[in-house]
Amino acid sequence: MKKFQISPRNRDMDETIQAIIDQKTKPIGALGALEQLALQAAAIQETLTPAWESPHILVFAGDHGITQEGVSPYPAAVTAQMVLNFVRGGAAINVFCRQYELNLRIVDAGVNHDFPAELPIIHQKIGPGTKNFLHEHAMSLEQVEAAIRAGSLLVAKIRFSTNCNLIGFGEMGIGNTSAAALIMSEICQLPLYFCVGKGTGLDEEGLQHKLNILQKAQAAHPQSKTPLEILQTFGGFEIAQMVGAILQAAENQMLILVDGFIATAAFLVAHALEPNVIDYAVFCHQSDEQGHKRMLEFLKASPLLHLGLRLGEGTGAALAFPLLDAALRFFNEMASFEQAEVTNKEDDFFV
Amino acid sequence: MKKFQISPRNRDMDETIQAIIDQKTKPIGALGALEQLALQAAAIQETLTPAWESPHILVFAGDHGITQEGVSPYPAAVTAQMVLNFVRGGAAINVFCRQYELNLRIVDAGVNHDFPAELPIIHQKIGPGTKNFLHEHAMSLEQVEAAIRAGSLLVAKIRFSTNCNLIGFGEMGIGNTSAAALIMSEICQLPLYFCVGKGTGLDEEGLQHKLNILQKAQAAHPQSKTPLEILQTFGGFEIAQMVGAILQAAENQMLILVDGFIATAAFLVAHALEPNVIDYAVFCHQSDEQGHKRMLEFLKASPLLHLGLRLGEGTGAALAFPLLDAALRFFNEMASFEQAEVTNKEDDFFV
Repeated sequence: MKKFQISPRNRDMDETIQAIIDQKTKPIGALGALEQLALQAAAIQETLTPAWESPHILVFAGDHGITQEGVSPYPAAVTAQMVLNFVRGGAAINVFCRQYELNLRIVDAGVNHDFPAELPIIHQKIGPGTKNFLHEHAMSLEQVEAAIRAGSLLVAKIRFSTNCNLIGFGEMGIGNTSAAALIMSEICQLPLYFCVGKGTGLDEEGLQHKLNILQKAQAAHPQSKTPLEILQTFGGFEIAQMVGAILQAAENQMLILVDGFIATAAFLVAHALEPNVIDYAVFCHQSDEQGHKRMLEFLKASPLLHLGLRLGEGTGAALAFPLLDAALRFFNEMASFEQAEVTNKEDDFFV
Repeated sequence: MKKFQISPRNRDMDETIQAIIDQKTKPIGALGALEQLALQAAAIQETLTPAWESPHILVFAGDHGITQEGVSPYPAAVTAQMVLNFVRGGAAINVFCRQYELNLRIVDAGVNHDFPAELPIIHQKIGPGTKNFLHEHAMSLEQVEAAIRAGSLLVAKIRFSTNCNLIGFGEMGIGNTSAAALIMSEICQLPLYFCVGKGTGLDEEGLQHKLNILQKAQAAHPQSKTPLEILQTFGGFEIAQMVGAILQAAENQMLILVDGFIATAAFLVAHALEPNVIDYAVFCHQSDEQGHKRMLEFLKASPLLHLGLRLGEGTGAALAFPLLDAALRFFNEMASFEQAEVTNKEDDFFV
């Protein structure tokens, strides 16, 4: 696998950036999370006039062999149907990307359907869905490496062609909360009980069935595993391409918008491989999928939004964008106490 | 005082609206809080194609006699200085209103400063700041009624002239967390200890001093009080004008964006006078000011954002706007399962 060069983010300018934030006409810290975003963005961009260039959302789609076990209330065919819905502009992520003027790209990472070549899809299918990990590894070692490379190359290309410095990753794949739950359980070393949730809307019986299946699958692959082996064993092609995309984005010092449960599972793998990726991440929301809260705790992450979303597609990342934008705007546009001739707290006005 | 005609919101269309939401290409409920916003907005607008017309943020400013007791780390002069900062476009609320294309209006409800008439301020000063409520009522009965009327007339005028159907209220007033804490304590029947916070940034000693002063003030006005008497005794002109503005907005079936601690205190008074206002409210964020969480609990409100903000000015309301916008856009623009030819969960795909 390609070795990524991911440095910790630059911290040389932190004090200067913080001083600018603290001189804005507001009490110290009064813009809360927006202040941390402004600091992170300016530091990563290594400038005192940070700006977002060509923000992108990439939605990676892939199918999962484990759907043969009835772990989702939707049939696997919905993955391809939803990709076509993305292409026609009818899904939630289309709506939000139009609203916030985000560049949306749909990636066939491994859907079990042959899309016509002329459709505006990035065709980089690793295979027609993964194998059923109840019985065998979801993918081969060659496939997992090819997927990471494909995700990475795509981000490198976008960076090169658009100078993009803000990128969010979403996914579509019936069955992928099952893959994500197993990745979470293995990397966070948590029992599956804490990792498995209702996904697109299982009832209690369906949830119990999903948990049983995933426990059997975990028992079927007991050997100690590296992050790459975990990804190979349980992952999906969309998850593996996201891992490569995340690593490349961090190498290119782009800010990474981390979406929900499945995107964060990909982030867990990237983070296990290269811990410095955390410096480039913004955790956009806490999904209603039950395992996500613990996943975020494992990463010591404070998500920006708590809206009860559980849709994937990068919708949480897209919905967080106006806050990212607000962070840079207040940093660049707000007057300082001096500029506005407003008396600051420290001024000795009682004299 | 004017009697407002505030009906519960229309519920006749709820089932139809919910059915449209549930047919969108997403699992049931997967857009979380956005779905509730879409329902509320469509129902209030009484249409299946809801839209925001001319969204406004009004920032009401006023001074407070209680600042004579040293309850804020900033001098009272900052209220007027910040109004001038708003006029010049340098404050946080200016930045966010520009970003989201919200109409921003600054209202002198009672600042202790004579602003030149030609400034783009809505001049409706009730007085040059309130009296010190440690010793006397903050305002007279005539003043509180005039303030409610002024706030109400302003909203009626905006509604009439722009057809605005979405309005948020913010405030600026050194000392107004003290006023809001007392209003909260009286209306929610909670000890001041739970209502008093650090405001713009008091240290522990300052906070203790503020609590002592406010406890003395509360003890100085022991008689049982109506909502209007509470407002008269402890309120500010900006808070009282917001009460009138909220009531008028609800009467005109506008959606009301409720901002942070002080704006919610105004909402508490409006709600105590006319409980139906709650149907028209969206609680935009939970402030870092310590009493706000309990205030929201009292109203059984689930705030949209938790960003650690504690700035006022309507910033939380402005930052929530993209979510309100997203709610209507998904409702109007997303494809249904049928339109997109996506298999729904209920379809008998196993046959």
